[in-house]
Amino acid sequence: MSGVDDEQRGREEHLVRLVLDSFEGTPDPRLKELVQGVVTHLHAFLRDVRPTEAEWKQGIDALTAIGHITDERRQEFVLLSDVLGASMQTIAINNEAYADATEATVFGPFFVEDAPRVELGGDVAGSAVGQPCWVEGTVRDTGGRPVPGARLEVWEADADGFYDVQYGDDRVAGRGHLVADEEGGYRFWAVTPTPYPIPHDGPVGALLAATGRSPMRAAHLHVMVSAPGLRTLVTHVFVRGDELLASDSVFGVKESLVRDFVEQPPGTPTPDGRDLGGAAWARTRFDIVLAPGDTGDRPGGNN
Amino acid sequence: MSGVDDEQRGREEHLVRLVLDSFEGTPDPRLKELVQGVVTHLHAFLRDVRPTEAEWKQGIDALTAIGHITDERRQEFVLLSDVLGASMQTIAINNEAYADATEATVFGPFFVEDAPRVELGGDVAGSAVGQPCWVEGTVRDTGGRPVPGARLEVWEADADGFYDVQYGDDRVAGRGHLVADEEGGYRFWAVTPTPYPIPHDGPVGALLAATGRSPMRAAHLHVMVSAPGLRTLVTHVFVRGDELLASDSVFGVKESLVRDFVEQPPGTPTPDGRDLGGAAWARTRFDIVLAPGDTGDRPGGNN
Ligand SMILES: [Cu+2]
Ligand SMILES: [Fe+3]
Ligand SMILES: [Fe+3]
Repeated sequence: MSGVDDEQRGREEHLVRLVLDSFEGTPDPRLKELVQGVVTHLHAFLRDVRPTEAEWKQGIDALTAIGHITDERRQEFVLLSDVLGASMQTIAINNEAYADATEATVFGPFFVEDAPRVELGGDVAGSAVGQPCWVEGTVRDTGGRPVPGARLEVWEADADGFYDVQYGDDRVAGRGHLVADEEGGYRFWAVTPTPYPIPHDGPVGALLAATGRSPMRAAHLHVMVSAPGLRTLVTHVFVRGDELLASDSVFGVKESLVRDFVEQPPGTPTPDGRDLGGAAWARTRFDIVLAPGDTGDRPGGNN
Repeated sequence: MSGVDDEQRGREEHLVRLVLDSFEGTPDPRLKELVQGVVTHLHAFLRDVRPTEAEWKQGIDALTAIGHITDERRQEFVLLSDVLGASMQTIAINNEAYADATEATVFGPFFVEDAPRVELGGDVAGSAVGQPCWVEGTVRDTGGRPVPGARLEVWEADADGFYDVQYGDDRVAGRGHLVADEEGGYRFWAVTPTPYPIPHDGPVGALLAATGRSPMRAAHLHVMVSAPGLRTLVTHVFVRGDELLASDSVFGVKESLVRDFVEQPPGTPTPDGRDLGGAAWARTRFDIVLAPGDTGDRPGGNN
């Protein structure tokens, strides 16, 4: 705010005070805190960046466009939150590091309730195209104890970069849920994750284009793990060597979540004797550690 | 952020850095500044207030609802900006005090282009109900020189609290434009301003209700004054004694804009001999001083 004289600064500060005071009577103390926080940082933004009236109108117009493209199938405000790193920051805030517990990352918009049950060693891919990939690991608590019966939800895009729900037909592919065995172990077939763009034909895509940013997400497999008495984990497994790891469009990558996906030459025997007709495949291992928590519930899922 | 340990703080700061860096390649320097400003204050808000994932989802849902009620006739994002004082702060930032120039305030959503020309001394009210009110004054520059030919746009709600455009028919009432005389003088009949609520049947109304705030605006007459070579002024005249002056829902009141509206008992002769059929009327005086500026254009009008 260089160049702003004392009188002007006083006028601006007085207005902030007025607005904060107007919310003093909010009955719910948490709502009061949230709203006054919005006021504080919104006004700090305005006084810092000092938009012209035309620029502020452009901002209003952008929010209006985001509102208009948003419907039951498309949540452009969540995309905005994602590309501004706000979704990831909210997750960081609500999943403080606990010992060696596996880190959380963004939920994403493509989770579906009631995905089919897949037996251990079964195939999650279904009709999804892509290279077959064997995924295995264990679920433990931070004391190193196995979590038998832990529930895993897994979902992923196909090799064309689309989730089943994006095809607009009723297919279910690239998703399922599994239940860990008595030793907390799990294993399943999927497809090797490949990069895909977030939906970028709307206002958020326009923002990315105007700022020279890519809409691409680093390749990943979504995993959500829950068990009674432990903190539900929403995370991804990323692929070592993916060149998008450093520029994921939603800032979801954490080094601790990157795994080797080991290429298996055509004809390599599979762990469960499955016949892949001589095709190449890959395998990875993702051992999961759940932090203590008071529920086995899923999070509200902010995106 | 009490209770946040160094490791957690480091993780959160690292994410902010990542997001800021992602916008480093923005070609337009002003866009870069605006977007990085949004990122800085959005993340500061999150780290300060620390919303749960459910609370962040509630915020996304609120923006979604605001988007869905917004259409050609209803701009709920502008209402939000208004009740958070952001509109008024933008105006404060862009209309820094200049000598004794008349202060600016919010534009509001009810201005209409091409309002009818009203001759000096004519009636702006038309079919708008309310107590007749004589308004007069002069337009000068900060050097005290009259501004002959200055264009004044005036508009106001009727005594029922509605602008003509809110009736949904084609009426034009309570608005017009005038041209100041050779001495910069102007005068017209209108109705005495009365308080009215901003539209409060939507998400912004729900926010006001939940925070114990009133949707009422202090009584006012809108005035926009433009002349070549002078800064266009968008302002209101407020009514001394109005008990809403201290709680205007959009923070538009400035003490320097409050005027006496002097009640004239029934039968008091009018300044121009107009016959009011023995009704009571009121009168006020609003002398206007325009700051220097390089255009006589209207502002983009952010609301
Ligand atoms: Cu801030
Ligand atoms: Fe995804
Ligand atoms: Fe108004």
